[in-house]
Amino acid sequence: MADFSVSLQVRDHECDMQGVVNHAVYLNYLEHARHEFLKTRGLDFAKLTAGGIIVVVARAEIDYRRSLRSGDHFRVTARPQRASAVRLVFEQEILLERGGDCMVTAKMTTTAVNERGRPYFPRELEALFLSASKS
Amino acid sequence: MADFSVSLQVRDHECDMQGVVNHAVYLNYLEHARHEFLKTRGLDFAKLTAGGIIVVVARAEIDYRRSLRSGDHFRVTARPQRASAVRLVFEQEILLERGGDCMVTAKMTTTAVNERGRPYFPRELEALFLSASKS
Amino acid sequence: MADFSVSLQVRDHECDMQGVVNHAVYLNYLEHARHEFLKTRGLDFAKLTAGGIIVVVARAEIDYRRSLRSGDHFRVTARPQRASAVRLVFEQEILLERGGDCMVTAKMTTTAVNERGRPYFPRELEALFLSASKS
Amino acid sequence: MADFSVSLQVRDHECDMQGVVNHAVYLNYLEHARHEFLKTRGLDFAKLTAGGIIVVVARAEIDYRRSLRSGDHFRVTARPQRASAVRLVFEQEILLERGGDCMVTAKMTTTAVNERGRPYFPRELEALFLSASKS
Repeated sequence: MADFSVSLQVRDHECDMQGVVNHAVYLNYLEHARHEFLKTRGLDFAKLTAGGIIVVVARAEIDYRRSLRSGDHFRVTARPQRASAVRLVFEQEILLERGGDCMVTAKMTTTAVNERGRPYFPRELEALFLSASKS
Repeated sequence: MADFSVSLQVRDHECDMQGVVNHAVYLNYLEHARHEFLKTRGLDFAKLTAGGIIVVVARAEIDYRRSLRSGDHFRVTARPQRASAVRLVFEQEILLERGGDCMVTAKMTTTAVNERGRPYFPRELEALFLSASKS
Repeated sequence: MADFSVSLQVRDHECDMQGVVNHAVYLNYLEHARHEFLKTRGLDFAKLTAGGIIVVVARAEIDYRRSLRSGDHFRVTARPQRASAVRLVFEQEILLERGGDCMVTAKMTTTAVNERGRPYFPRELEALFLSASKS
Repeated sequence: MADFSVSLQVRDHECDMQGVVNHAVYLNYLEHARHEFLKTRGLDFAKLTAGGIIVVVARAEIDYRRSLRSGDHFRVTARPQRASAVRLVFEQEILLERGGDCMVTAKMTTTAVNERGRPYFPRELEALFLSASKS
């Protein structure tokens, strides 16, 4: 099954003095793809947050292979995997639209935290975990 | 004639603790629309920069009318006007895609500067100025 | 009386492909100075927001005079003025630490909005307005 | 020997709709600490870049332990280690100023790339590598 993906384009302010997209900006791209993926499962990050469900990134592993440049069109994929009782891992890639070169691969580990910052399972995310384990 | 516009979507990281897009982020949106407009006139901001043509914002006037929120789809317009011998003003709007509500209006004054920071007319921009004055 | 100011340093990721601080980033600097100023009057932006007091920028006027570069140390001033029954204007400057060159001047108009987005006077800000009118 | 560190403060625009610093922003903090560290070895990132020495992040591993909030003062450390012939790894931490709680740990792998994107050893960085191996 093809992974979920969103299509984006580099904005010039995202490039730093090296003339390429700054390495921190890719985390913005990756987050946007994850949040758009959530919507396909009926989950909205803003509504979850407003409802007190705080989903956070617990660990990020990112390999930078090639740099995106001004004007580049690219796709960001998101494939969720249940990693543990409280952790959902997203395997993600950033691919150049033209040619499909892989620019970045990432493994983003997310969890929900309660008011004291402890990981837990919000019932609201069960649908996601179930769906994710089937995909 | 319909204004040039680009269609974008809010990314959640662009929202601040108030849950709406931070006021500084709109300048990123506005810049992206201007740079995409330049491309329609055969001008590429990154190539201009690499070629030593430094186009900068000299003055920004921005009226914030309504706030964009998570997930909002919107359009950013850009209509250039020759303001003086060395200044090109972009009248811009940010409009909610659904319903067309005007969220932001902006008047962005741009100019090119030479190596000592003085405004001047790069020959490369003449095509833009000519086209702009006709539109 | 000397204006309130905060001292900051350019971070390299704030520079764009022109090798200077991107014009949108100055709004981040200006906001930080305003919020630090609020603290000197006993007001905390995050606590106001958490308490339902939504203070927003209604209009920004920014003149870009010189560009900040990698490593530059600079000060951001904030001088509030009561502009109307519902509007507080901050006159602000960004000054190079060494030499004091003025890089940016800004006039930032702020207001509080209620749940329907209408400007109003939160009682919590009265102390600020009173103080501001005296300064 | 105490690690090199820089002291910073959260700016409110760096907080997202959860009211805490967005996870991508920590990479900006970490980068700033690395670039300030370079200066202690006589190396300036902007000058390196202008001179054609392109130092990039090849891999990032970041563990998010606690979230920084509005107003927090914190320190960012940077301890370099020679990881291979072409790779320099920075072990970094973000520590709350008050109390010293560890908020983030990171292992940032950097390298220099030539015009075709291949890792290599710029002579200009030798001093850094030598110094780093001694520390």
